[in-house]
Amino acid sequence: MPDIIEPRVLKGFRDYLPEAEIERTTLLESLEASFRLFGFVPIDTPALEYADILLGKGGGETDKQVYHFVDHGGREVALRFDLTVPFARFMAEHVDELYLPFRRYHMAKVWRGENTQRGRYREFMQCDFDIVGVDSVAADADIVLLISAALETLAVGPFTIKISHRGVFNRFLAASGVADRSSSVLRIVDKLEKIGSQEVGRLLAAEVGDKVGAKVLEFIAKEGDFASTLSKMEGLAGGPGPDTERLRAIRASVEGAGLADRLVLTPSITRGLDYYTGVVFETSLDSIPQIGSVCSGGRYDELASLYTTRRLPGVGASIGLDRLLAALEAIGASRRRGGYTEVLILDIDEAMAVRYQAMARECRAAGLACEVFPEKRKLAQQFAYAERKGIPFALVLGSAEAERGAIVLKDLKTRESVEASTSGAAIGLLRERLGR
Amino acid sequence: MPDIIEPRVLKGFRDYLPEAEIERTTLLESLEASFRLFGFVPIDTPALEYADILLGKGGGETDKQVYHFVDHGGREVALRFDLTVPFARFMAEHVDELYLPFRRYHMAKVWRGENTQRGRYREFMQCDFDIVGVDSVAADADIVLLISAALETLAVGPFTIKISHRGVFNRFLAASGVADRSSSVLRIVDKLEKIGSQEVGRLLAAEVGDKVGAKVLEFIAKEGDFASTLSKMEGLAGGPGPDTERLRAIRASVEGAGLADRLVLTPSITRGLDYYTGVVFETSLDSIPQIGSVCSGGRYDELASLYTTRRLPGVGASIGLDRLLAALEAIGASRRRGGYTEVLILDIDEAMAVRYQAMARECRAAGLACEVFPEKRKLAQQFAYAERKGIPFALVLGSAEAERGAIVLKDLKTRESVEASTSGAAIGLLRERLGR
Repeated sequence: MPDIIEPRVLKGFRDYLPEAEIERTTLLESLEASFRLFGFVPIDTPALEYADILLGKGGGETDKQVYHFVDHGGREVALRFDLTVPFARFMAEHVDELYLPFRRYHMAKVWRGENTQRGRYREFMQCDFDIVGVDSVAADADIVLLISAALETLAVGPFTIKISHRGVFNRFLAASGVADRSSSVLRIVDKLEKIGSQEVGRLLAAEVGDKVGAKVLEFIAKEGDFASTLSKMEGLAGGPGPDTERLRAIRASVEGAGLADRLVLTPSITRGLDYYTGVVFETSLDSIPQIGSVCSGGRYDELASLYTTRRLPGVGASIGLDRLLAALEAIGASRRRGGYTEVLILDIDEAMAVRYQAMARECRAAGLACEVFPEKRKLAQQFAYAERKGIPFALVLGSAEAERGAIVLKDLKTRESVEASTSGAAIGLLRERLGR
Repeated sequence: MPDIIEPRVLKGFRDYLPEAEIERTTLLESLEASFRLFGFVPIDTPALEYADILLGKGGGETDKQVYHFVDHGGREVALRFDLTVPFARFMAEHVDELYLPFRRYHMAKVWRGENTQRGRYREFMQCDFDIVGVDSVAADADIVLLISAALETLAVGPFTIKISHRGVFNRFLAASGVADRSSSVLRIVDKLEKIGSQEVGRLLAAEVGDKVGAKVLEFIAKEGDFASTLSKMEGLAGGPGPDTERLRAIRASVEGAGLADRLVLTPSITRGLDYYTGVVFETSLDSIPQIGSVCSGGRYDELASLYTTRRLPGVGASIGLDRLLAALEAIGASRRRGGYTEVLILDIDEAMAVRYQAMARECRAAGLACEVFPEKRKLAQQFAYAERKGIPFALVLGSAEAERGAIVLKDLKTRESVEASTSGAAIGLLRERLGR
């Protein structure tokens, strides 16, 4: 016996067995259908890029989470750790070959050497979509409407798209005299859902004092509805401005599309990232808010300033696929299945092999996913296979059936059988039962 | 002005702009539909694996083409360079969680530090499909039928699936007394299409002498039809055997499915790889045979012997996606398009923004891919955008139209316009024109 290498994958990496891969593929296909319905186009970029492109020029202090190494040609290279940085590089490089506004989606794997103890994976898929090259209400609204349409299609139950605007928050901080504390205040405010307003109030007081802290708490409190929350924010930020007008106009557009209920003005939403400059959003599922945002994003002024002097404003969002899959499972909307096959042609008699293939071709021509069991085995084994793979129907044609000119269609769930006199008739019965 | 990092990708790596990505995605979706129609299920494996898994235990003499490095945890890791090795590891690791026969497909990226001067890429996609756990006529035939169905769906024009059997070839070599020269003979024979029979004859004579060389040339010559070629092979190989019976039975099954014309017994097909032990096939497009095989594969005895003592025989094939894309382009069957959008709602009047979004929602509810131009720009610019993206129709609603209660549907190819009195009526006209 030769030495065997123990088959195993790296920590933090995963195989996708068919059920899990079909579940993931089904989700991606559904999202993709929504993207296309909104006029978004797909792109792809390399998994491996120059390290200085992905990490910026400060190559020395490279992030420990990034997989990077020197390739055969002596180049410092790295595996992409998100889809935003490659997209920025892509836009800077190709903007003259493209057209603006450019609405793209990208669903692809990224790699991070994360600490796996926190249940994080080192390889996972991201799904980003953006509209670049325009700064307008319609583009902002489109992203909100697309998030909404995508989640509706997934049937995740009721959900809430929380929206706010970094500009209003910044004006409010300036009006309160703490503009220079912006990032630490935002960081605290961002924890509201996790730690509650009392604890946030305590942290704010420690950071900017009791009085301003209380004002911040007032600012981030949600009022009864969109209009009253917006009025309060305007009041505390020193009056109306382009930012509050933008929020009002987005709300009107979303209302025009009949989806106003989904959109909740939530001033505590700030998104940690520095690069958002306009609207920001997060999306939570009403039945399981505790899993956090399944889709977040916002508007930025400069997508690609690292790689070009050209100004590329945009708005976009990112769907948390692993989180969404977990959510679908938690609310029982997961679409796990063993396979796509709709009918299995049993192998009962080797002399019938040629007829089995002919029947299979007939099924497929009728658009039915079909497989021929490829070996004569005990019927119980063939049924067990069908059950394991979730195949709902079987076609049975042995010598006994052939003698009396019959083909049997068997419902593998109910175990009921019906006979037909030709394969065409059997396939007709099958289509009826599948509603096709 | 800050320092700008020049945006660029690594040599041998490619960005996919929307047109190219849509073309590739369309191809993948078509192939996937065929796989599913035949009962195949998808799997996925990590891009990064332990180097010893991918390269075998002789880690010292690692292939220079493989991207490998030491990760943060001191592990020797490598990027997968094909989908066969990870599949072998996958089957060895998960066979008890799966069911046999297992029919899977896997479409994913692989990486090789190839010499790019030969027009090779360092990142490319592979597409493999296999039936593992059974050694039968039906499984072999299924792979042939699937190749055929997939290419039919792609509308690549007439094609030929060349089939042979390693077993017959081996028997023939043994009968000719040169069994020990098998690999060098196979390597020469494999060049037949490239260098012609005269040159192959010369190389064979140098390798095994004039007499045996002439016999090999006779063996690999194609006769008039399947049956006569098979008879000749049987004669030269010492009579019928399980291998020639297998070929005959596969041919009968393929004939039963009405596809006998596609299948040509071609004894010169041997496939270089050592691990094929049964049937082997290659597929060429009749209109451009010079691009070589677009789908090749065969039967093997031991998929995963590096990782398990369990015997896992199987049969499968791999589609050359880059080659197939090039072929589709060469024969004018390429499905390049700028985007998926079917109708663009022009932005003519900012006061109408809300109505635009409402109309867009109506379009999408009718299943039409729709986008709202997100900014008021000159009409010429909006039309140029539509043309660039290949959008066939526009909906026009400005204040003039609104005043007379009209919505204009414009065919962007013919420049013809029709008016409707409601958005619902306009969408009805649009669906008619799109045949939906």
